[in-house]
Amino acid sequence: MVQYKLYYFNARGRAELIRFIFAAAGQEYEDVRFEREQWPEYKPKSPLGQAPYLDVVENGQTFQLAQSLTIARYLARKFNLAGKSAEEQSEAEMYADQVLDLLNELVKIHFEKDETRKAEVANKFYTETIPNTLKVFESKIAKNGSGYLVASGLTWADLFLVDFLGWLREKKDSFLSNVPAVKALDQKVLNHPKLSEWIAKRPKTEL
Amino acid sequence: MVQYKLYYFNARGRAELIRFIFAAAGQEYEDVRFEREQWPEYKPKSPLGQAPYLDVVENGQTFQLAQSLTIARYLARKFNLAGKSAEEQSEAEMYADQVLDLLNELVKIHFEKDETRKAEVANKFYTETIPNTLKVFESKIAKNGSGYLVASGLTWADLFLVDFLGWLREKKDSFLSNVPAVKALDQKVLNHPKLSEWIAKRPKTEL
Repeated sequence: MVQYKLYYFNARGRAELIRFIFAAAGQEYEDVRFEREQWPEYKPKSPLGQAPYLDVVENGQTFQLAQSLTIARYLARKFNLAGKSAEEQSEAEMYADQVLDLLNELVKIHFEKDETRKAEVANKFYTETIPNTLKVFESKIAKNGSGYLVASGLTWADLFLVDFLGWLREKKDSFLSNVPAVKALDQKVLNHPKLSEWIAKRPKTEL
Repeated sequence: MVQYKLYYFNARGRAELIRFIFAAAGQEYEDVRFEREQWPEYKPKSPLGQAPYLDVVENGQTFQLAQSLTIARYLARKFNLAGKSAEEQSEAEMYADQVLDLLNELVKIHFEKDETRKAEVANKFYTETIPNTLKVFESKIAKNGSGYLVASGLTWADLFLVDFLGWLREKKDSFLSNVPAVKALDQKVLNHPKLSEWIAKRPKTEL
C-alpha cells in the first residue's frame, strides 16, 4: 500500500492544488500542516528546503518530491487526472503553467509594499493579463467540446484554474461574466462531489 | 516523419533549453527566429499568445504547445532525456522547476528599474538563493553517483541547469568553486559533442 504525506504551512497557498488532486481522486493522504515557527523542524527533512513537499511511502521506502507543480503532475498521472495521450498531458501541463504564471503575479501583487507600484502592477494584471488569459481558455474549452481544458475531460489543469479563480474572491464573478465556458467549468468543478466535500470541510485559513 | 518547428525571438532567453534538448537528442528542427516587430504576425498563430511555441507536424496534422517548460518536458520524454522511471522523471521535473525559479529571479533583477531595489534583490539572490540552491544540487549529484541530477544519467534538468549557469557569465566560476560536483556536471554537459557543436554554431545574441 502506498501512503502519501503532504507537508505545508497551515494555508491553502501553494499546496491547495495538490489537495484538490487528492480530493478529486478520492485518495487518502496525511495533510501535515505546520506553523511558521515549526518550519525549522521540517526544513531539513524536505528535499529542497521548501514547502510544499510530499513523502510517498511504499514498502518501507520513502520517495520525496518538492515543487508544487511537480508534485501535482506526479499525482495527476498516478490518479488519471493528467489527460489521456502524451499530447493531451502536455496540453494540460501548458494550461497549468499558464495558471501558475497568473498565480505568481497575484502573489507578487499581494506582497508588493510600494503602493504606487502595487497599483500599477495590479491594474495591468486585472485589466489585461487575467481577461486575456481567460479569453484564451474560453476558446479552448469551447473548441474541444468537453467542457474542460482538454478534450477527454477533467484534468488537474482544470483543478488549478478553479483554485486560482478562488483567489479572485469577490472579483471572480465579474471576470467570469464574459467567458461562459470558463464559468461553467468553474461551477462544474466546484460541484464535483468529492471536491465540494473537501472544500466544505477543509480548515479555514486566510491564505 | 515528424517535423518540429520552434518559434521564438532571435534570442536564447526562454527558448535555449528547448534548443539544448534538440541538440543533445541530435534531432533536426526548424529554429524560427523573429524580431520584436514581427511578433504581431506570429502571435495569432501561437497557442497562448506567447513565445516560445512549438509546432509538431505529423501526417499533415499540427500539434501546438506553448510554455517553455511544457515544451521541454514533452520533447525530453520523446527523446529519452526525461529520466527512466516515473519517479526519476518527477525528480528531473523538480530540479527543472527549481532552476526555473532561479531564472525567473534573474530576469526580474535584469528588468528592475529601481536601482536601490535592484541592488537589494540582487544581493539576496547572489549571496543566498544561488549558493543555497547549488549546495542542494551538489549533495544530490554527489549522492546519486551518476554525475548528473538523477541517478540514471543525463536529463533535460541538467541541460537547464547548465543553461542557467551560462547566464551567470563572469560570475559563474566563483559560484562553482565550492560545488565540485555541479562544476563537473557543467563541464561534462558543455563538452557533450552535439551540445558543444550547437553552442559553437548558434547565433550570437545578447540575451
